[in-house]
Amino acid sequence: MSTPPLYNSDTIIALATPSGIGAIGMIRLSGPDAISLVNEVFNGKDLSIQKTHTIHFGTIRDGALILDEVLSSIFIGPKSYTKENVVEISTHGSAYIIESIIKLLIRKGARPANPGEFTLRAFLNGQLDLSQAEAVADLIASNSQASHQVAMQQMRGGFSTELQHLRDQLIHFASMIELELDFGEEDVEFANREDLKALIFQINCILHRLIQSFEQGNVMKNGVPVVIAGKPNVGKSTLLNALLNEERAIVSEIAGTTRDTVEDEIIIGGINFRFIDTAGIRDTVDIIEAKGVERTHEKIGLAKLIIYVIDPEQEIEEIITQIEYLRDLDIPFILVVNKSDLVTDGFYSQLSTLNSQLSKVSGIRYQVSSSETPDLSANAADKRPQISDQPLSDFSFQLSAPLYISAKSNTGVDTLKEAILQKVNLHSINTDDVLISNIRHLEALQKTEASLNSVLENIGNPITSDFLAVDIKQALHYLGEITGQVTTDDLLETIFSKFCIGK
Amino acid sequence: MSTPPLYNSDTIIALATPSGIGAIGMIRLSGPDAISLVNEVFNGKDLSIQKTHTIHFGTIRDGALILDEVLSSIFIGPKSYTKENVVEISTHGSAYIIESIIKLLIRKGARPANPGEFTLRAFLNGQLDLSQAEAVADLIASNSQASHQVAMQQMRGGFSTELQHLRDQLIHFASMIELELDFGEEDVEFANREDLKALIFQINCILHRLIQSFEQGNVMKNGVPVVIAGKPNVGKSTLLNALLNEERAIVSEIAGTTRDTVEDEIIIGGINFRFIDTAGIRDTVDIIEAKGVERTHEKIGLAKLIIYVIDPEQEIEEIITQIEYLRDLDIPFILVVNKSDLVTDGFYSQLSTLNSQLSKVSGIRYQVSSSETPDLSANAADKRPQISDQPLSDFSFQLSAPLYISAKSNTGVDTLKEAILQKVNLHSINTDDVLISNIRHLEALQKTEASLNSVLENIGNPITSDFLAVDIKQALHYLGEITGQVTTDDLLETIFSKFCIGK
Repeated sequence: MSTPPLYNSDTIIALATPSGIGAIGMIRLSGPDAISLVNEVFNGKDLSIQKTHTIHFGTIRDGALILDEVLSSIFIGPKSYTKENVVEISTHGSAYIIESIIKLLIRKGARPANPGEFTLRAFLNGQLDLSQAEAVADLIASNSQASHQVAMQQMRGGFSTELQHLRDQLIHFASMIELELDFGEEDVEFANREDLKALIFQINCILHRLIQSFEQGNVMKNGVPVVIAGKPNVGKSTLLNALLNEERAIVSEIAGTTRDTVEDEIIIGGINFRFIDTAGIRDTVDIIEAKGVERTHEKIGLAKLIIYVIDPEQEIEEIITQIEYLRDLDIPFILVVNKSDLVTDGFYSQLSTLNSQLSKVSGIRYQVSSSETPDLSANAADKRPQISDQPLSDFSFQLSAPLYISAKSNTGVDTLKEAILQKVNLHSINTDDVLISNIRHLEALQKTEASLNSVLENIGNPITSDFLAVDIKQALHYLGEITGQVTTDDLLETIFSKFCIGK
Repeated sequence: MSTPPLYNSDTIIALATPSGIGAIGMIRLSGPDAISLVNEVFNGKDLSIQKTHTIHFGTIRDGALILDEVLSSIFIGPKSYTKENVVEISTHGSAYIIESIIKLLIRKGARPANPGEFTLRAFLNGQLDLSQAEAVADLIASNSQASHQVAMQQMRGGFSTELQHLRDQLIHFASMIELELDFGEEDVEFANREDLKALIFQINCILHRLIQSFEQGNVMKNGVPVVIAGKPNVGKSTLLNALLNEERAIVSEIAGTTRDTVEDEIIIGGINFRFIDTAGIRDTVDIIEAKGVERTHEKIGLAKLIIYVIDPEQEIEEIITQIEYLRDLDIPFILVVNKSDLVTDGFYSQLSTLNSQLSKVSGIRYQVSSSETPDLSANAADKRPQISDQPLSDFSFQLSAPLYISAKSNTGVDTLKEAILQKVNLHSINTDDVLISNIRHLEALQKTEASLNSVLENIGNPITSDFLAVDIKQALHYLGEITGQVTTDDLLETIFSKFCIGK
């Protein structure tokens, strides 16, 4: 760590566990005086002479008044989360007790911690790099297998080591080129241009892979926005409830861990699907009718998947218009025929023929084979897989055939879930590939790439040797921003202010 | 412990910290397999060979999948809360992670804990007696200095030891009398009747003190229900807000510890004052007008203090009616003249005279000197201090003089708070006296007292020797119920089902 420890002259304190009713609350202190401050109010063993990673029972006293019977856990720096002395006090989970103990220790000299200040100290003291520190917040916010995995991978080092290694090599070239500039008019070349080119190609290759991984990383971290659309009374709400209820049953299975479920979120195959409230669309107005309404259109544009619900009693001509409209939206969609008990043989064969025709005629743009990944980013329509001239295989056609379900009697809902997963078609969430999921990292990587491309353009041109040095420094700057070798107070403020207090 | 450990054959698990967003979550396991179960999924040191009260960093893995980086704290029984093996796992505070780890350990053989089951085991294994176990729940629920203190005292032994000692002596007499009965017709007397009488007098004396302490204990634990009353538009809501806002500022002073404040609760001098929503009364209808409405009257009856707000523009005759009505309610009250800037000299002198007259004429029943404790229980009007025939001293008269405040400009609110504290007039909340605060304990003590009184009646009457034994056994039974020497599954179920999961 080149940055000097800015904060570790004082000792901070915060409640580390959620506020609210629980058996236990944990108060955490970090800083040079953490142990001695607690020792002043702790009645039990002398905490100042205890080994690191040990737990001690005693009482916290404010004068003669016993505030609580607690367990004090001792961590002696640098063997702690922040690398400073840390004490964790386990109290009974009463807001009054927690508040009283925190107030007491503040009176003794501790300072209330800012949001994320424990993790900021861990970063400043070299325990974590910046991307790892950011991953801590992502980990706490993770609410699905996918978001958990992408955060865990990042926290455990992920791309940090790789980027660090590349940056070190680039620093070598930067210093060589600086040296050349020092020699001024003399025609020396310390930095081998071919080696530099080779390194940049190598770096760009890795950058490209990381930049590409953002799509998957982003879906894993933030989930997939979904719209359920269709004409009024086709059963959109019933379908949503059928999807949600099953999830709720799973969530509440383990008593005591029920999480605050956001109303319209379900997890399928470890991935979070967030249902966008299109207000006018989902519940009352058909998207076709609302075609002209810009706001509605915008909302649909946010979706990365549309579940379009059809009623078997609708006119087939109307359904044709709807499918054509959906196709033109360029967003993956799933056709769902609800109220399957009302489906007649005539409707079934008409819709099959229709679907088959539309597939053949247009190639159905949302039709991708299972070995390809549909592009899920909002404005990446141009990167969508090319439509094949070949007739679609029977197998892949089956994937996009309309699904017949009954939301009311919960028939076919599981099949729909499988289809939803097929549609987002991530490589796999059980991947060992390094993924990025943070927009800040994406932007820094893209800027690095641009700077390096500029280096490549100027290589071999003696007139632009100065630019070469500038561009390499830019690239180093952006790479350094990701892992935190380069930081500004503003950047740290932006990142850590989003943390909760106590982390 | 005579009760055999019922539950400790299996290992229980629960989240011990509140659910919700926080930096850290803590999962707790207790039982013979606690350490070995965690060891199975913990990647780090071998937990099975670690010392008690030590902390170990590592990862929790489900197969190859890393669920989290955690700290595992090891407590080897009997050196733990439950006296069983206990492991506490500190995780990142993500609901997904916590759920995943709990599910994993359940799959490995742990069982989700019932509410209060950790404390139940602590009780069954002799770590705590029953009244101490109950105090744990009170401690967690404590939200003021007073409620905290009464719970802490009880948890730390409080009256348990004293009761236990008395019970042991009584058991001695019981066995002597049983022995007499065994000798049947022979006229033997192993139990000295005079000694028994002396013991019972001694016990009754202590019982009486404890029973008497319930009033103070109950106020300290449950707070004081208050009604703010007065005609419409006298400023009752403004006054309540003035009282509440100051409190909120104190509560939110320490970032991160903001508690879920119940809308209408304030803490003054460490005691919780709960404002009863009298709906019709507080905000719209005057209590005088509502005199006939039974429901309203009932609500006022729940109050142990009335703050009666007067507008200086009200007619003095109306105020006389109001004060007389209040006096007849037999509930302590404070007269508050709001909008003090509107008070005229005439109003002031009229009200002073009025108050002085009413004080002299009726002695003002709510007027108690500061050395006495007003009886705050709902139906204890008959135990109220006798009205003195002596003129009230100037000092005590001052206490009940109307308070002139301006709720809007926050003038006089602090004086009102002092007056409120004066009115409830507890001996002191910083008392070392043993207090009871649990209605179950009160009832058991009262039943014990009744049984012992029955013993006293029958002592010396040879015909009723059988009854003597029965009554002593009854007394033993009720005393034993308090500390848990006598329990039934129903009793335990009733007590522990009120606990939160994880405690």
